[in-house]
Amino acid sequence: MELNFDVHGLIPVIAQDTKTKDVLMLAYANQEAVDLSRETGYAHYYSRSRKKIWKKGEESGNFQKIHEILIDCDADTLIYVVSQQCAACHTGHWTCFYRTINGKIIADRLFEPDKVYNKRNE
Amino acid sequence: MELNFDVHGLIPVIAQDTKTKDVLMLAYANQEAVDLSRETGYAHYYSRSRKKIWKKGEESGNFQKIHEILIDCDADTLIYVVSQQCAACHTGHWTCFYRTINGKIIADRLFEPDKVYNKRNE
Repeated sequence: MELNFDVHGLIPVIAQDTKTKDVLMLAYANQEAVDLSRETGYAHYYSRSRKKIWKKGEESGNFQKIHEILIDCDADTLIYVVSQQCAACHTGHWTCFYRTINGKIIADRLFEPDKVYNKRNE
Repeated sequence: MELNFDVHGLIPVIAQDTKTKDVLMLAYANQEAVDLSRETGYAHYYSRSRKKIWKKGEESGNFQKIHEILIDCDADTLIYVVSQQCAACHTGHWTCFYRTINGKIIADRLFEPDKVYNKRNE
């Protein structure tokens, strides 16, 4: 299907775990990131801050194996239905949505970020 | 918590059903829509096309009763965890994500849109 990218050529992508159905994160993809996700079977996004394609887990090892990609009625949002390796959030939590809007933490931390990031190539 | 709105004063909101954990839709909210959602207990969004606050279900009757609002690590995306009345999508499907990216329909239609929209005030 043809995707409706925004004016920046991006489309929001919700990552959802196939087993728990937890929403893990929201990120953005351009056409190339969607194509790479489909071709490789692993979630790719486009980093708006780093301005580059990003394979989820490339630094942390916490890859997202894609089971299915869903598209919404307006074709302007995707869901990557994935098997999440270890945890999705850079804070070490299973999901980026580990807090209520009042700031209450509702999920455990599964890894220590300091021990994972910037360590894999040492 | 303080929310990180985008340059248009909006934040993406994922609606997720509390019982099935299905992702129902992605829409956007401004501060007022978030405040109204918290105050009334029903999901409110900001329509980018109509440029106004929108109570989900105000036309269709398919309201979303809010159970909880979650916020992500960067405070720039929300999840409204809701009880969805009838169906979320204006096409009549339970979820707006009723198709795979290849166009295969994977969910049933629960209502006929022609019978629901623009009929309630007749």
